[in-house]
Amino acid sequence: MTGSFSFTLMKSDAGARLGEIVTPRGKIRTPAFMPVGTAATVKAVYTDQLEAAGADVILANTYHLMLRPGAERVAKLGGLHRFMRWDRPILTDSGGFQVMSLSKLRRITDAGVTFQSHLDGSTHELTPERAIEVQCLLGADIQMQLDECVALPALHKETSAAVERSLAWAERCKLAFARYATRGQALFGIVQGGTDAELRQRSARALVAMDFPGYAVGGLAVGEAPEVMLETLALTAPLLPAEKPRYLMGVGTPTDLIEAVARGIDMFDCVLPTRSGRHGQAFTWGGKINLRNARHADDPSPLDPHSSCPAARDYSRAYLHHLVKSEEYLGAMLLSWANVAFYQELMAAMRTAVAEGRFATWASETKARFAPGILAPLNAAALPRS
Amino acid sequence: MTGSFSFTLMKSDAGARLGEIVTPRGKIRTPAFMPVGTAATVKAVYTDQLEAAGADVILANTYHLMLRPGAERVAKLGGLHRFMRWDRPILTDSGGFQVMSLSKLRRITDAGVTFQSHLDGSTHELTPERAIEVQCLLGADIQMQLDECVALPALHKETSAAVERSLAWAERCKLAFARYATRGQALFGIVQGGTDAELRQRSARALVAMDFPGYAVGGLAVGEAPEVMLETLALTAPLLPAEKPRYLMGVGTPTDLIEAVARGIDMFDCVLPTRSGRHGQAFTWGGKINLRNARHADDPSPLDPHSSCPAARDYSRAYLHHLVKSEEYLGAMLLSWANVAFYQELMAAMRTAVAEGRFATWASETKARFAPGILAPLNAAALPRS
Repeated sequence: MTGSFSFTLMKSDAGARLGEIVTPRGKIRTPAFMPVGTAATVKAVYTDQLEAAGADVILANTYHLMLRPGAERVAKLGGLHRFMRWDRPILTDSGGFQVMSLSKLRRITDAGVTFQSHLDGSTHELTPERAIEVQCLLGADIQMQLDECVALPALHKETSAAVERSLAWAERCKLAFARYATRGQALFGIVQGGTDAELRQRSARALVAMDFPGYAVGGLAVGEAPEVMLETLALTAPLLPAEKPRYLMGVGTPTDLIEAVARGIDMFDCVLPTRSGRHGQAFTWGGKINLRNARHADDPSPLDPHSSCPAARDYSRAYLHHLVKSEEYLGAMLLSWANVAFYQELMAAMRTAVAEGRFATWASETKARFAPGILAPLNAAALPRS
Repeated sequence: MTGSFSFTLMKSDAGARLGEIVTPRGKIRTPAFMPVGTAATVKAVYTDQLEAAGADVILANTYHLMLRPGAERVAKLGGLHRFMRWDRPILTDSGGFQVMSLSKLRRITDAGVTFQSHLDGSTHELTPERAIEVQCLLGADIQMQLDECVALPALHKETSAAVERSLAWAERCKLAFARYATRGQALFGIVQGGTDAELRQRSARALVAMDFPGYAVGGLAVGEAPEVMLETLALTAPLLPAEKPRYLMGVGTPTDLIEAVARGIDMFDCVLPTRSGRHGQAFTWGGKINLRNARHADDPSPLDPHSSCPAARDYSRAYLHHLVKSEEYLGAMLLSWANVAFYQELMAAMRTAVAEGRFATWASETKARFAPGILAPLNAAALPRS
């Protein structure tokens, strides 16, 4: 692989941005949604289905992979792309968020985080340096700095302390990245600061001064009200350079994505499409469908006759209902596939709407198809409260 | 669909038979292995994967489908083929065996079986007539008579009574089939009689006199020793007309299949490849592999570099090990797929060996690759004992 990392902003329309990230492993059309492949697999979906659905990039979780199968092992096996048979770009998180939400007994200091594995209780340390080393061992194309995320609501002094610690870690991650990374890989900084405008400003300015090739907005969708999240997003995004991609971590429902794109966000990841698929829920252009519901038992129509995804187009709702009720693997497989494909269709529709200068109209029409967006606090469950 | 059901015996070699069943939905090359699609899905496998693996026919379970989603419902939705998106032949069992092994509180009389659903305790009746009606509602290409199967060992008088009852039911199934079936569908009789040579003879002769287009050997792999099963098979198969296909129900391991083919059997079904796949076991030409085993953790080699199945050829054992340990859907998906494909490769190899007149040599070489065949009493667990 050769080449470098770049982002081109092609057009803006009603706050939404159309762009393209280029990496040595391929292009990422933005706004982009990244299916989540936590443990080196997007649950119940084949990688060729992801490709056919139009996913340009997927996310994998550093916390899970460093514990099992282990980053050094993945590196020896040729890296994460070869391991899981996905040759397009992969973004990894730093592991920090999941240490906070999943591990037992963790202790956080300026040095880093010490924690016990949720799998076997073994003790591990995640420092900024190790977070980058692990991501480089995995071979992630886009990597994230280690940061400290506090659950909301939080005291000002705690949020402020987390901002400062995250900035110090950003510096250390950058140094480690210079040591470990190969050409064309990119490290993103993460803006923290809770819902506090001044802290967000402090965080964003310091990170921008460090000149990262992209920025994430962290510390949202962690317990705050939806309006508060959108407000914070609206005040944070403009603090970031227009010519760099912006990534909102862990969000969200279709409505959430539309609202966030309208506020200038370019990249997303969320377990929602696959997790919903495993629980019998389908996302479609007609709204959300609960396949457990008995009203589908005799329905010969597919989820969406116009979908390009076979799972959504070729199987009857009656069959999907039967599979879900029978707890068959194929139910989770088809619905996860259909949802991953729907999310890609949604992003493609946003990109087209921006390209054609009709994002505002498109957004209000599309949001009406879905129940009011709950800015899903999917990741917040186990976050420590200050 | 047009055309009729036929079987052509093309060649015999060392007891093994090469043949072809023709149905309006396509040809079935024999010896044939039918993957089991209990609830209208071969667990964790897509139908296009079954097709690509070379499966000419699959099995579905009448008991499960009549309870959920219901035979009348499937019929209204266009039949089982359309429901599950499989347009090649489907064979269904009569439901009788699973009533005995799965349902709560059942009562068997000459009229039929009354039982309570294992799903919700609701009461159902399965008569010979209803068993055929259900199979016709599903649209099965090959259907099975309702029979009574007793677990082994059994008293002679009980085995004998089951033979007589099964023969009476065979007559009634034949009449019902004449009423419900469409052209090209076929009804098979089932030889019972436990391990008793005289009872097997009585059963086979009476069934042959009824002139079914095919015959199953039932009542085996239900608790008897492997040698006893093979002996019984050896004495039963020659009682059946050479120009009709012979089906051994619910068997088995690769070694079992080879031994049974050597005794003149043409068709098989078994949950072993998919069930094993869900439990981390892979069947390969190198023998059985337990992917849970830690020795695979760093192994970059695939299950079989020469397989035509992507699941066996393209993913490392290290990755499969990781997926199995992580209890990921994809582990069950890939291993079930690989096993279904291996079973098809095994049958194809048998057919080639017979065609080339070297079945005996092939069989002894191939059996050596596997641990001694246990004539897997997979289905016997919950059968009532006399």
